[in-house]
Amino acid sequence: MSKKYVYFFDEVENANTWEWILKLGNKGAQLCEMTNAGLPVPPGFTLSTEACVEFYEGGKKWPSELEAEVKKNIEKLESEIGRKFGDKEKPLLVSVRSGSYVSMPGMMDTVLNLGMNDETVEAFGKMTSNERGAWDSYRRFIQMFGDVVMEVPHEKFEHAIQAKKNEKGVENDTELSIEDLKELVNDYKEIVKETRGELFPSDPWEQLKLAINAVFDSFYNPRAIKYRKINHLKQDAGTGVNVQAMVFGNLGDDSGTGVSFTRNPATGEKEHYGEFLINAQGEDVVAGIRTPLPVDDLKKILPKVYDELIEVYEKLEKHYKDLQDFEFTIENEKLWILQSRNGKRTAQAALKIAVDMEGEGLISRDDALLQLKPAQLDQLLHKQLDENAKKEHKVIAMGLPASPGAAVGKVMFHADDVAAAVEADADATVILVRTETSPEDIEGMNAAQGILTARGGMTSHAAVVARGMGKCCVAGSNEITVDEKNKVLKIPSKGLELKEGEWISLDGSLGEVLEGQVPLVEPKLSGDFDTVMKWADEVRKLQVWANADTPNDAKIARDFGAQGIGLTRTEHMFFEENRIKAVREMILSKDKAGREKALAKLLPFQRDDFKGLFKSMDGLPVTIRLLDPPLHEFLPREDKEINELATEMNVSVEELKEKIESLHEFNPMLGFRGCRLGIVYPEINEMQVQAIIEAAIEAKEDGIDAKPEIMIPVLGHVNEMQRMRSLVDSTAKKILKEKGKEISYSVGVMMELPRACLTADEIAKHAEFFSFGTNDLTQTTFGYSRDDAGTFIPFYVENSILEQDPFQVLDQSGVGKLVEMAVEKGRSTKEKLKIGICGEHGGEPASVEFCHRIGLNYVSCSPFRVPIARLAAAQAAIREKKEK
Amino acid sequence: MSKKYVYFFDEVENANTWEWILKLGNKGAQLCEMTNAGLPVPPGFTLSTEACVEFYEGGKKWPSELEAEVKKNIEKLESEIGRKFGDKEKPLLVSVRSGSYVSMPGMMDTVLNLGMNDETVEAFGKMTSNERGAWDSYRRFIQMFGDVVMEVPHEKFEHAIQAKKNEKGVENDTELSIEDLKELVNDYKEIVKETRGELFPSDPWEQLKLAINAVFDSFYNPRAIKYRKINHLKQDAGTGVNVQAMVFGNLGDDSGTGVSFTRNPATGEKEHYGEFLINAQGEDVVAGIRTPLPVDDLKKILPKVYDELIEVYEKLEKHYKDLQDFEFTIENEKLWILQSRNGKRTAQAALKIAVDMEGEGLISRDDALLQLKPAQLDQLLHKQLDENAKKEHKVIAMGLPASPGAAVGKVMFHADDVAAAVEADADATVILVRTETSPEDIEGMNAAQGILTARGGMTSHAAVVARGMGKCCVAGSNEITVDEKNKVLKIPSKGLELKEGEWISLDGSLGEVLEGQVPLVEPKLSGDFDTVMKWADEVRKLQVWANADTPNDAKIARDFGAQGIGLTRTEHMFFEENRIKAVREMILSKDKAGREKALAKLLPFQRDDFKGLFKSMDGLPVTIRLLDPPLHEFLPREDKEINELATEMNVSVEELKEKIESLHEFNPMLGFRGCRLGIVYPEINEMQVQAIIEAAIEAKEDGIDAKPEIMIPVLGHVNEMQRMRSLVDSTAKKILKEKGKEISYSVGVMMELPRACLTADEIAKHAEFFSFGTNDLTQTTFGYSRDDAGTFIPFYVENSILEQDPFQVLDQSGVGKLVEMAVEKGRSTKEKLKIGICGEHGGEPASVEFCHRIGLNYVSCSPFRVPIARLAAAQAAIREKKEK
Repeated sequence: MSKKYVYFFDEVENANTWEWILKLGNKGAQLCEMTNAGLPVPPGFTLSTEACVEFYEGGKKWPSELEAEVKKNIEKLESEIGRKFGDKEKPLLVSVRSGSYVSMPGMMDTVLNLGMNDETVEAFGKMTSNERGAWDSYRRFIQMFGDVVMEVPHEKFEHAIQAKKNEKGVENDTELSIEDLKELVNDYKEIVKETRGELFPSDPWEQLKLAINAVFDSFYNPRAIKYRKINHLKQDAGTGVNVQAMVFGNLGDDSGTGVSFTRNPATGEKEHYGEFLINAQGEDVVAGIRTPLPVDDLKKILPKVYDELIEVYEKLEKHYKDLQDFEFTIENEKLWILQSRNGKRTAQAALKIAVDMEGEGLISRDDALLQLKPAQLDQLLHKQLDENAKKEHKVIAMGLPASPGAAVGKVMFHADDVAAAVEADADATVILVRTETSPEDIEGMNAAQGILTARGGMTSHAAVVARGMGKCCVAGSNEITVDEKNKVLKIPSKGLELKEGEWISLDGSLGEVLEGQVPLVEPKLSGDFDTVMKWADEVRKLQVWANADTPNDAKIARDFGAQGIGLTRTEHMFFEENRIKAVREMILSKDKAGREKALAKLLPFQRDDFKGLFKSMDGLPVTIRLLDPPLHEFLPREDKEINELATEMNVSVEELKEKIESLHEFNPMLGFRGCRLGIVYPEINEMQVQAIIEAAIEAKEDGIDAKPEIMIPVLGHVNEMQRMRSLVDSTAKKILKEKGKEISYSVGVMMELPRACLTADEIAKHAEFFSFGTNDLTQTTFGYSRDDAGTFIPFYVENSILEQDPFQVLDQSGVGKLVEMAVEKGRSTKEKLKIGICGEHGGEPASVEFCHRIGLNYVSCSPFRVPIARLAAAQAAIREKKEK
Repeated sequence: MSKKYVYFFDEVENANTWEWILKLGNKGAQLCEMTNAGLPVPPGFTLSTEACVEFYEGGKKWPSELEAEVKKNIEKLESEIGRKFGDKEKPLLVSVRSGSYVSMPGMMDTVLNLGMNDETVEAFGKMTSNERGAWDSYRRFIQMFGDVVMEVPHEKFEHAIQAKKNEKGVENDTELSIEDLKELVNDYKEIVKETRGELFPSDPWEQLKLAINAVFDSFYNPRAIKYRKINHLKQDAGTGVNVQAMVFGNLGDDSGTGVSFTRNPATGEKEHYGEFLINAQGEDVVAGIRTPLPVDDLKKILPKVYDELIEVYEKLEKHYKDLQDFEFTIENEKLWILQSRNGKRTAQAALKIAVDMEGEGLISRDDALLQLKPAQLDQLLHKQLDENAKKEHKVIAMGLPASPGAAVGKVMFHADDVAAAVEADADATVILVRTETSPEDIEGMNAAQGILTARGGMTSHAAVVARGMGKCCVAGSNEITVDEKNKVLKIPSKGLELKEGEWISLDGSLGEVLEGQVPLVEPKLSGDFDTVMKWADEVRKLQVWANADTPNDAKIARDFGAQGIGLTRTEHMFFEENRIKAVREMILSKDKAGREKALAKLLPFQRDDFKGLFKSMDGLPVTIRLLDPPLHEFLPREDKEINELATEMNVSVEELKEKIESLHEFNPMLGFRGCRLGIVYPEINEMQVQAIIEAAIEAKEDGIDAKPEIMIPVLGHVNEMQRMRSLVDSTAKKILKEKGKEISYSVGVMMELPRACLTADEIAKHAEFFSFGTNDLTQTTFGYSRDDAGTFIPFYVENSILEQDPFQVLDQSGVGKLVEMAVEKGRSTKEKLKIGICGEHGGEPASVEFCHRIGLNYVSCSPFRVPIARLAAAQAAIREKKEK
């Protein structure tokens, strides 16, 4: 039997499978799918991708059976639609479209109205009662076909129409008369003849064959090859060719066109949402010259069509089991559906639709959960700028959408000033604007409404801390420069300078900086949100914990459903004003005795911090990371501060500067930090462990169930683990013995260095848990400094060298391999090892799915991402179930 | 049959095996080995480690058969030596020593002269004709046994002897009379009785049992347990106990004692090297009060013993097949060999001995090669300070032995000044002293005799560059501070300040800084060196290449036997005065056109550089790494230089500072460098590729066989490789087409990031070779900044957290795992992939062996390390052969 190359849309059942998509291209498969779902799709057929491949392999010749097949299908098409190619009364016009297994935008334009010639144009004019429109369509068809199929430079057509307008003394195309257009058609044909040395084909069949060849060819043009290379698409896939009858909404008052959603995409309400125009084509709706009517008005105007449309709503949702956004055309009281796709919707609508559809029995609970986009939940949790009011404010600069939500306030340039302003007036609304932020800015960041920085990426200090605080942040705005000294925010491209006290507004979800005060709208969490979260919790296997440094953060996290604290950065507590002095005294001490004296001052603060956390998380684990950053981060940098500190510490400025200089590091990220500090200066970590254990004892006395988990950072060698384990255990033992108490705690490792992953089997012997610090692990595995990579990561992503910023989405093929290896090795020596992740990736849906798949116990993310992680974890569990 | 716990030394043949060492301990096994080699070892026996383990497991009781076995062996010992325990004429005295499978220094002292009591002391006095000596030995025995076996605090004995001296009004022990010593023996016994509540045991058998128990016990004392934990030794190995007859060199003029080497350890000559004293014990030789005689004098004094000794030389070398360093005692004309071990020797002697022994048929060529220590060859290749003259110069500071050899010169503090001084007077001898060096100091470093820095580790910039140049360097001397501004080198601990122009001398092999001018001695390469290298080349499989940046370095490398250049750092060429301007112009350009203009100026320089390299390496591969460091490394840092540059570039100082600031990076090691630069600014690498290809064309025209290998640095993703591969190929193709020439070249990757190793299978598809940059791979895998890790790596090594500095010796269990993975993955997609290593480890013997074992094709190291690598590679091949 001979091969089959052409499929009429009604020939393939269940075309929405990978196999059929590869065979027909995605567009072809979707047209078949819609047709077989019983939707009134204009008839047509698809030439398979194999036809394309064989065309190319055979030296640009059609496979032998192809012509006969196409002819047969054209006949079927003519009979279904009741029109004929070249017919002088009811001419068949078709569209010809390419379509590979993945859509490749810009690869080839569509050819519309194929079948037009000197005879059918007249018939078409009569049919539409619009002679001028017919000739205009004819002119456009020659131009489109000439350009796309016959490779006539489109400027030539442009010149011709311009010449015609000049000749007639008119300005706009629309002012050309029927006669002008007829002349133009002749001019166009002449252009084709001159350029190509052949006549413009008037035989529709000839037109069709040429158009099909052009689509085939387009798959192998250099632009398309390059596009596929960059996007890692198959080079040998070929493209399908879709030939479909044109239908017309402009055949009179029993015709029309419209767009509709099966439900309200803004609220999720089940209502007929959409609009239409009578006696119009699709582009008229878009053009906005005539005002369209709401869909329900059709009931009065064309009740039969309305009834059909109502049926379509049902069919669409029953078939696609999701909100559909579709286009329709009414031709002489006959309803045609041109296209349908999953509709975009607000976060609020998404929740309502998922919950409602489950309630209606349309979809299962699992499918309801899968329908949601976890990242979209973010919209619900933060204040937003009022969409309408926003239109009246200019965007004055763009930056990275570093932390979602919105903020409105007066600009200030020093964290201290912000803190002071809010201290003086609790209602002060301030936005902190900095070139970049550093850990000493924490207090001011916390007091600010939002943060704007000129430098740093999505995982810069400002971004990470802001997300942790659930505070809006626009980071790394290349368009601004910040002159902290003179307190001016400059936007050279706009010629703007903003001084301290002037108002701006930030949209942290879009990375926009707007002038003035845009009103804010509060987030609303509906009952649907709770329902969805409850469903998610029922199916997910992965626990969701949160990163939190303060009792307040911990409380927010718990309210959002966090099942533990996966990361407390103890050093963030060191920056508060009453503590930083003691920290500096410790660093500048000449000997152990001096350090111990200073540490003794810090002990009560840390103990109180931890006690607060235990209280917030009563009954749930709290993972406390021992001191992580290099010591120089705690020292002042500016001369003024150094002078002050020297006076305070009673040392000479020179001596102090020398000490600061001696602590300087070329690459602090890879420097003297984490457990390296704890091993060389054990007294620092001993104080911290003492604070943790004493806090747990005190909490217990207050009836609180404290579950401390002590985490060792920046660890790369089993010998470091043994040392630190023994430091922790002996310190804890001593205190418990002194106080005569029992507290159970566990000790684990922040897995953030490749070497830790490579030797995880050895390290696991001495650890109760691993928690992957995927931020630093990404830095070391890629050799990217998070703070510097802004110079090339955006370029890399734009140019598809990296699919995504690996600090936002976990790099599964590189970093992920190390994580998997560490999980496997770790559990090979300790089967029950508890494993989590506490990098920023813990709240990113694709990364959460990865964590589920490789069998982690938990992910830990910033409090505001907990709901996202809960949903993502549920989806991962459901997908896994479905695969099995 | 019952178990056997005790082995007489003559019972075990070939005891020098792992099995026997585990069973008898290392010392016991060696005594058995010597005995069975026919050497006259004083008789004795060993209690096995199993006896120790069972003693402990059995609650500190001897296994039932043990006592009988020991008794039987004591009887055999008595009969062999012809003395008896407790005998009143010829008393047997024994030593009791511990010995586990690995020696654990300081775990337990030796007990000598066991068997002494009130009766045997008299006999011993008569036997040695030295009554006073006998009583002094008795006193010492009680003290030693009391301390070690009976746990009597040794201060008590110290107090007693002091009291005795006070009583007698003498100052020194030696002034005590026989009677005084007798009284002291009584006092000692009294102390034991008081402290332990029991009498000091006078029965030799009782003494022996107690001593054995003490040795057993010592294995489980807390100190020993901790020692084993730190050094990763087996906790359940137990210790052997060696009981051996004491022999005496002080029994008259037919007795004596001496030490000897079987050949001259300084020159390697085959001669009787050693010395002896008549009528003396070992400690007398060491004490240096009497002048010992050369060994050959024994021929006249005790000819029979001399003949025996000559036989011993032969037996020792025949048995151990290496230079032996041994101790002997002559007791009444009977020669005893107490100990023998491989002798330490100079590099020159080592070569001669290996070559001679092979010539004598004593050892095979393979064993001759294995006998050598590759690292020792370094001594032969560099100037050294004259050992004798050195004694007259004070060491004024210590630093790290960063690059071997020696240097003498006047101190200067700026690289420019050094360059200028040498330019003015080619004979000027200068030592560059800096806090740390940076790439812009290259020219001055090259002009200097040696380099001294206050900061930075073994792989700091100064150290790496100096080793590459074969130039002496002492780095990271914490004792000095360098005030570059005022041109003073301060050594506060010595109260010294050296101004520009003052002389110092450096010993780069020891890390010493000496005052004044120490005379230098030139290195000498003997014919033995060539012989050994020839042998090594015959057996090794690994090729040895060199890292070289200049034609001169390349020539040195080739003379040392390099088979290719594995790493040329193109950026080192950028710093020369006539180039740096163009480099800076390129960096500061505002657009691509500006950059291209500046690059065009650099092109001829680079082309000449490469042509010179191709010429030096005619017929051998030259691997050229494209630009590696971040651009800011090329910009000035000091205000003065910035002002100058601004004037030169015709930009404002402010603008220039802003540009420099904008290029600043927090962690330059992980920043915008290597292929990241090449991808964002392709014109830089395009210029370099053009220079390489044009240089190869010109070289070919001159009849030179150029083999360029282009290496892409800092690569972590297959997409980067695809981009860079296409940049290189298209640039090369364009030039070759323009010139109408054919040049073959290859393109490969510097594997220096964990992610590159993890995805090596993908990357290999587009590469002809991999070269591991293990310096950076160590930095990223450990998360250690090479320039900053000086703060903790020394602490880590001292405290056994790291066995070695991983920048010196490749970390096989971490970094090595990544390397192995990359080799396996790389060859899984490209079987013939050429793989090498070009980090500093390429010249380190243990790392070279690792490279051989995992199947690399070559190692590349600094020119002066090439001979070391050749020998190490040969040893690796031989060891592998032997294992099979």
